[in-house]
Amino acid sequence: MTTLSPADLANRMADRARAILKPYFRTRIQVQDKADTSPVTIADRDTEAALRELLLNHFPHHNIIGEEHGQQQRGSDFTWVIDPIDGTKSFISGMPTFGTLISLQHDDRPLMGLIDIPFSDERWLAQRGQGTRCNGQICRTSGVSELREAILYSTEPDPFSPSQLQRFNDLARRVKLRRFGGDCYLAGLLASGHIDLLVEAGLKVYDVMAMVTVIEEAGGCISDWHGQAVGGPNWDGSLLASASATLHRQALSVLQAETTTVASLDA
Amino acid sequence: MTTLSPADLANRMADRARAILKPYFRTRIQVQDKADTSPVTIADRDTEAALRELLLNHFPHHNIIGEEHGQQQRGSDFTWVIDPIDGTKSFISGMPTFGTLISLQHDDRPLMGLIDIPFSDERWLAQRGQGTRCNGQICRTSGVSELREAILYSTEPDPFSPSQLQRFNDLARRVKLRRFGGDCYLAGLLASGHIDLLVEAGLKVYDVMAMVTVIEEAGGCISDWHGQAVGGPNWDGSLLASASATLHRQALSVLQAETTTVASLDA
Repeated sequence: MTTLSPADLANRMADRARAILKPYFRTRIQVQDKADTSPVTIADRDTEAALRELLLNHFPHHNIIGEEHGQQQRGSDFTWVIDPIDGTKSFISGMPTFGTLISLQHDDRPLMGLIDIPFSDERWLAQRGQGTRCNGQICRTSGVSELREAILYSTEPDPFSPSQLQRFNDLARRVKLRRFGGDCYLAGLLASGHIDLLVEAGLKVYDVMAMVTVIEEAGGCISDWHGQAVGGPNWDGSLLASASATLHRQALSVLQAETTTVASLDA
Repeated sequence: MTTLSPADLANRMADRARAILKPYFRTRIQVQDKADTSPVTIADRDTEAALRELLLNHFPHHNIIGEEHGQQQRGSDFTWVIDPIDGTKSFISGMPTFGTLISLQHDDRPLMGLIDIPFSDERWLAQRGQGTRCNGQICRTSGVSELREAILYSTEPDPFSPSQLQRFNDLARRVKLRRFGGDCYLAGLLASGHIDLLVEAGLKVYDVMAMVTVIEEAGGCISDWHGQAVGGPNWDGSLLASASATLHRQALSVLQAETTTVASLDA
């Protein structure tokens, strides 16, 4: 049965997700609030179930982590991480920045990442060592290396703690432009060189794993706000992605430095 | 020469704007900062010049107000208000929510509004008494009438004064969902029933006039935060647009009420 490569399967999964999601989009779909107050719709659940079925058909022994239907641990070294709708708040309000995230890792090492934007038919697919492609075309980050030239995006300030918000605002004051809104679309825009910094907090593993390969294979850097790998057991849910290593170091120094100021203000 | 109706001309102008803007989008175009620190590009200026030329060819005696090339006052009762790129910050960062705004008014009365989103080929066109159409299909606001059921958007919090931000946050606490990002796309999403409240501040006349007819003809309400008409000489640049008259009254009461609290906090 398994004649598809992981990348071919990921493309097929994303095609399937598009087919399920598009008819629901802009239909004022009913929304339920989950325990963490993030909204979920029947579109999220239907899509994830379809993606799990495809995985089960082609790689029945691989582990699966999904946003809506939890973890299926089968003792494999390979784990697929899927998020049927990243940006459900956008999805339920007609804003076309939501997308489907699919990734594959071997142990803790991300091998492949896919970000699909159904509304605009844009798909970023990256495989380790093979670069990042947007709709089949190789793409690269901007390479911007100075904060004062950088365009910074964040989906929304709400998940930031007060201390994180202060550090984020410190970073925002040093860049050319800071804007809100975007969801997983932002990682694609960064990989294609349109924006230069992406800063988020409060993320879960299914929000972030697909971004890792997409960003790194396009020439960018991705870590948490402490410079550590995202998605691991000690990860705090923060994310910094940058167009270059130099820019990443500069942004990290701002995102880390402010804790001192907060402490001294408290003293 | 003038064989086109104003609506036909507006469509032709928007077609022309798309043709000029699309090749510039996502090319890391050079940006200049205007006196008010809003960015402007050659794409803004080229597009507005082309739109003015079309107007001059077809309605040579009408007045024109545009963002980049100022006011051409010809003593007519008819005035066209054009913004070649609403959302230049989005335009320069690859975010497809920017658009072109075109409106026509007779004295102070808006007769027609057009919002065109080049990236997604979505166009809202409204004529007084004839409804609002999105890509030719009649569209209506959601009719949502309760704050707790409403989806609220604002492009960004930056233009709010501290007092405005406090009142905006008070409103945000009462709605189902508050999100940032969107530019003129938000007025289209409101007219088509996907979002229910749009709150902005710091707008200029060319940012807002096209929205008036698009929102009102779709069944929505639009005013400043004091319930007065937008765009006039005493207008403060604030905007509230709502999916229904009932919702508008509720939102207005929150946006107006907080000034008392601010005063009492100061006392």
